[in-house]
Amino acid sequence: MTRTLPAGISVTVRVPASSANLGPGFDSLGIALGLYDEITVSTTDSGLTIEVEGEGADDVPWGPSHLVVRAIERGLQAAGVWADGLDVVCRNVIPHSRGMGSSASAVVGGLAAGRGLAGKFDPALAYGDDVMVQLASEFEGHPDNASASVLGGIVVSWTETDRPADGIGADHPPRIYRAVRLEPHVTLRPVVLIPEERSSTAHTRGLLPEMVPHGDAAFNASRAALAVVALTQRPDLLMPATADRLHQGYRASALPLTTKWIERLRAAGIAATVSGAGPTVLAFTTSEFPEELRELAIADGLRVLEPGIADGVSVD
Amino acid sequence: MTRTLPAGISVTVRVPASSANLGPGFDSLGIALGLYDEITVSTTDSGLTIEVEGEGADDVPWGPSHLVVRAIERGLQAAGVWADGLDVVCRNVIPHSRGMGSSASAVVGGLAAGRGLAGKFDPALAYGDDVMVQLASEFEGHPDNASASVLGGIVVSWTETDRPADGIGADHPPRIYRAVRLEPHVTLRPVVLIPEERSSTAHTRGLLPEMVPHGDAAFNASRAALAVVALTQRPDLLMPATADRLHQGYRASALPLTTKWIERLRAAGIAATVSGAGPTVLAFTTSEFPEELRELAIADGLRVLEPGIADGVSVD
Repeated sequence: MTRTLPAGISVTVRVPASSANLGPGFDSLGIALGLYDEITVSTTDSGLTIEVEGEGADDVPWGPSHLVVRAIERGLQAAGVWADGLDVVCRNVIPHSRGMGSSASAVVGGLAAGRGLAGKFDPALAYGDDVMVQLASEFEGHPDNASASVLGGIVVSWTETDRPADGIGADHPPRIYRAVRLEPHVTLRPVVLIPEERSSTAHTRGLLPEMVPHGDAAFNASRAALAVVALTQRPDLLMPATADRLHQGYRASALPLTTKWIERLRAAGIAATVSGAGPTVLAFTTSEFPEELRELAIADGLRVLEPGIADGVSVD
Repeated sequence: MTRTLPAGISVTVRVPASSANLGPGFDSLGIALGLYDEITVSTTDSGLTIEVEGEGADDVPWGPSHLVVRAIERGLQAAGVWADGLDVVCRNVIPHSRGMGSSASAVVGGLAAGRGLAGKFDPALAYGDDVMVQLASEFEGHPDNASASVLGGIVVSWTETDRPADGIGADHPPRIYRAVRLEPHVTLRPVVLIPEERSSTAHTRGLLPEMVPHGDAAFNASRAALAVVALTQRPDLLMPATADRLHQGYRASALPLTTKWIERLRAAGIAATVSGAGPTVLAFTTSEFPEELRELAIADGLRVLEPGIADGVSVD
């Protein structure tokens, strides 16, 4: 039975950005980045108000279809509660359509708000992070960004084999999304280079071939295994551990500035990959990012940030 | 300048078996198993004698083309030494042509003997394990078995991109083979089920397709990353972490007994994969292997061993 939350319960969620498709880990390896959207949600007696500040304030679709609101609703529903009205305030920092997981952050933020409201009403209703990973991944169909924003740190995420035929429906999803958090090596410093131009994941996903050489598949399997080692224990191996043959090459022509910068950074011995489906470049250093490269990047119209590695979504 | 070793230097090498292609880690993930071949090599004034005891005594090709002898020669050459004569005694325990890396063990054992003889003559001549991994992998063209026998434990191995066109020749190999050793989780217990029938890697490799679906490649990349996590930190995740779409399915029809046992063990919740190119089955447990399954396996003509995880090759 669905219980209705009283008016006047309020939560503020802080949800990190993320970078997915990390090097060889297409649809699998992700990292939480220290850029945060904040969402404050309060229950009211009726109606829905949404206020958006910051990134995307002018262009995010309004109304109940708003991704954050859909996620809040899903988060409440999964806890078995409902609210007659909601006030929602989004303070957005994560750049949109740049490959920094802003959609996944919106979904995770909304779900965490829904879970948080339910938990303030009755702590027994607050489900675990495994359920959060599942619900968030269902919104997008792959779990790498979402699980990074839920769990923080570095994540290995994967999709379980389809369930048997009876497993259809909202409560019996045909796919099970799972993820495990890893502790990044203490010296690991992510640097993101963010172009002004936007990218559509749907478009860039269309650039991937249906079939790939067996040797390329084996290449990525070995490098994805190595990536886990490099990111957690052996940053000296980050160069071979971020090499990829499953996505970056196919999308290179659609992302010329991104490709140029990945090549330039790797030529300088800095492990760089596409962040998500681009156009942002994700690089890893264990020391200062070279000032000369920073200035060249800024001259190329890139924002250069060192956001640090974030913990997972938090709720106050 | 090549120096000639005096007669009367002797080493005994103990080299472990290995299992490669571990689950999703085709040509990449390997594990050293506690079954050992021993090779004793002594320098003499002239000639070559080879004595083989145990496994394969009747069917290993004799003479200077013998794999162990070729590897000893390569091991000496790489250290810049030579011997006018050699007495070689091989005490073989690792089953041949079963997917337990006996060829790689022979190569690693021979190389370690060559390095060991050189090192007894002049410790400065004994090169490092990275060179051993490279030399051993050159014999077979992929590094997973060899690096497991060199380094021990669990290995992630990979092949670096081809060198530029000038990098041709024995001293400038076109491929660089690398590997890193990981410490297995303390509870991890490998179990091997060894059929009587033999298998040819060359034959089973021919069963692999040239092209595979992109989704299968992404599947293996995510599971290979997960395998590193499961084998070292989270044995509870071994079932999803040993799933594979790049080799086992394609070879299943050629290995009916192996396939039947992998399916039977996995249905019982025991993470099982093909060992190398088969026909041996490699399973992991964290508790007793079920007695009922052991008896069924023996009734099916399988040897069931729990060899433990080995350290790398050792020299006395």
